[in-house]
Amino acid sequence: MSDAIRRLDAREPEFLATLGALLAFESEADERIDAAVTEILRAVRATGDAAVIEYTRRFDHLHVGSMADLELPHAELKAALDGLTVEQREALRTAADRVRRYHERQKIESWSYGEADGTKLGQQVTALDRVGLYVPGGRASYPSSVLMNAIPAKVAGVGELIMVVPTPRGEKNPLVLAAAAIAGVDRVFTIGGAQAVAALAYGTQTIPQVDKIVGPGNAYVAEAKRRVFGTVGIDMVAGPSEVLIVSDGSGNPDWVAMDIFAQAEHDELAQSILLCTDAGFIDAVAAAIDRLLPTMPRREIIAKSLANRGALIHVDSLEQACAIANRIAPEHLELSLADPEPWVAKIHHAGAIFVGHHSVEALGDYCAGPNHVLPTMRSARFSSPLGVYDFQKRTSIVHISEEGAQVLGRVASVLAHGEGLQAHARSAEMRLKG
Amino acid sequence: MSDAIRRLDAREPEFLATLGALLAFESEADERIDAAVTEILRAVRATGDAAVIEYTRRFDHLHVGSMADLELPHAELKAALDGLTVEQREALRTAADRVRRYHERQKIESWSYGEADGTKLGQQVTALDRVGLYVPGGRASYPSSVLMNAIPAKVAGVGELIMVVPTPRGEKNPLVLAAAAIAGVDRVFTIGGAQAVAALAYGTQTIPQVDKIVGPGNAYVAEAKRRVFGTVGIDMVAGPSEVLIVSDGSGNPDWVAMDIFAQAEHDELAQSILLCTDAGFIDAVAAAIDRLLPTMPRREIIAKSLANRGALIHVDSLEQACAIANRIAPEHLELSLADPEPWVAKIHHAGAIFVGHHSVEALGDYCAGPNHVLPTMRSARFSSPLGVYDFQKRTSIVHISEEGAQVLGRVASVLAHGEGLQAHARSAEMRLKG
Repeated sequence: MSDAIRRLDAREPEFLATLGALLAFESEADERIDAAVTEILRAVRATGDAAVIEYTRRFDHLHVGSMADLELPHAELKAALDGLTVEQREALRTAADRVRRYHERQKIESWSYGEADGTKLGQQVTALDRVGLYVPGGRASYPSSVLMNAIPAKVAGVGELIMVVPTPRGEKNPLVLAAAAIAGVDRVFTIGGAQAVAALAYGTQTIPQVDKIVGPGNAYVAEAKRRVFGTVGIDMVAGPSEVLIVSDGSGNPDWVAMDIFAQAEHDELAQSILLCTDAGFIDAVAAAIDRLLPTMPRREIIAKSLANRGALIHVDSLEQACAIANRIAPEHLELSLADPEPWVAKIHHAGAIFVGHHSVEALGDYCAGPNHVLPTMRSARFSSPLGVYDFQKRTSIVHISEEGAQVLGRVASVLAHGEGLQAHARSAEMRLKG
Repeated sequence: MSDAIRRLDAREPEFLATLGALLAFESEADERIDAAVTEILRAVRATGDAAVIEYTRRFDHLHVGSMADLELPHAELKAALDGLTVEQREALRTAADRVRRYHERQKIESWSYGEADGTKLGQQVTALDRVGLYVPGGRASYPSSVLMNAIPAKVAGVGELIMVVPTPRGEKNPLVLAAAAIAGVDRVFTIGGAQAVAALAYGTQTIPQVDKIVGPGNAYVAEAKRRVFGTVGIDMVAGPSEVLIVSDGSGNPDWVAMDIFAQAEHDELAQSILLCTDAGFIDAVAAAIDRLLPTMPRREIIAKSLANRGALIHVDSLEQACAIANRIAPEHLELSLADPEPWVAKIHHAGAIFVGHHSVEALGDYCAGPNHVLPTMRSARFSSPLGVYDFQKRTSIVHISEEGAQVLGRVASVLAHGEGLQAHARSAEMRLKG
């Protein structure tokens, strides 16, 4: 029996408490990070370009004379794209096309309606003017992440999309630059960390202020985003990635084991959980884990992730599995079932549902079409995948006719007096005819 | 010439700097509040009901033996509604009906589409299970705010809506309770402050954990909401209320003066700004302000708000006015123009646009239909009015056919290898046929 991953039984009396402990994750406040971010935000706000250049020298070991030297010309993005293998270029293009096609369905449209008295009400939808896209450097620099963040913004009609990506010691990731070219990123600065977030949030002499900042980053970036929220919009601050697989034992245990690994290889805090009605299948998955784990290049990370936060859980029924899934509200849910469709509507809380044995999460991560930026840490209870709607906003339109103002003015006057707001009442009453 | 409110000219060289200073508003971090909120959140999380009862005794001077004593029975809401004057009851009902009708247009619907190879992609929309609605006690306890927060949640299909409202020394606001009855609030607890936010966010023995908390509150409530964000969703943390009036001089200066007062009477930090192409009309508005101000019951608040943050600004043209409006991105924008319709689409950033002389903001605050919870402090650049969509969320649906997995699996494999994620690649490759 595998000791790579814990086994649980949903029928045990302590199961819910054990599950709760397994899901618990709190990013600890780190005073050192807080203090560093405070100082960086202050400095960039005060001196702009000069502070960004200095921090880039200090943290990324890049020495430049001016911010202009930290902007990548378009030709360099194009060259990166041209320099890829045909296979890589085509894969990026196929992924981008599919992501674009899916996201085009997400656009919100303006609407309005008239009333009998001539009053017109509605909602005017507009795109954000300018968006900043943070892309991490080094190890976690993912071209797929560029596509997933940039394409919805461009589909929404964002006027200018500014990408920042640190290039420590000048080292650039050609796949990331190629993805920026394909996704239609407008400008790229090779800066990173809290200083890049500050530059986008406040603007500098060279970098224009944006309206929203999206994209993943390390703890400094996350804290900086949290702090500038309000001055600009931000996307959610993501926790560790998670997959929950619901199985009736009909699948291939090797496939399930590999899907578990694919989640676990992200980092040691990633979470992979299997809910299965078939104890024999759980044994087979455990055996596959033991057999396949040594073959994985990232086996050390996978092993730690499985030991820390993984679980194979025996459940009574698929109904019970769905109830547990809704409690977990996972980022990714695979319905690894012989007849999965009837179960989709029973899942109320999940970032994305992968339906059937061929709908493996990795396809969704790269190229199926839907976004791979999904709510983590149970936030699928109240939030949604990143989408075109995150780059659009609504304005209420209120056009009240003279006749309409006679009726509404009386209602408003009564309610305003009830709230003790006499100027509200009088501004409505003034529109009443004699 | 009025000295109640400053006059500016958009043609002056220093105008943009002056405007920037006028708009600047930063809620200062208050360490005392931070510390108090930290302790309250910790205590409620640790002991639940007991902590809430103790804080309610301490802060609201309400002594009860159990949480059950702090829940208001439905009959009491009904009694409050029955106890209103006919005029008030009808005004609340009319407002609720109109708000409901407008918001029903905001519902997001699920969608899906199929591809030639049998792959099916889509987006499943669900309502939040349970929402908490914070309603302030005392001075700022507004029935209209209950309607504006509760109705979109119920239209979205939220299963359970739990309202909290502090009742210091047992004092209840019958209009607020009546509004809760009309809006269909499911449960009401007479608790407030950070302890109420904590109870909703973490759950207690008596109060179930919610998925999102909405509604306005004082600095303690705002800080508590900020801190529990992530555990639950929250609406935006609102700044002072703002109106921007764009005028071509065609309106009635008394109406404009009263609309300015209606904004200013909220509190001393509220902001009222007029942009007008006609210097003579600005003189007339200034004279109206001087004449009408002494007649207002809330004249002290209004005078401070106008002196602190108000302005009458002479602009060259309506084009210039729209450019300034887009820079300000006001919460409320009144287009007080003879021919306003052509200008609506030129406004890209505003919470709500009130079109024409009869579309006074006070009607929108109470009963026109659109929500009165709107983005403040320039956040209309990236966010929207509170709406039904804030109580719904999306789940991506990915159902890939065996045939589809052959194409997508190859693309995913190339990209995953490019990112050094071999388990991702292998989980996709395993679905490829021989």
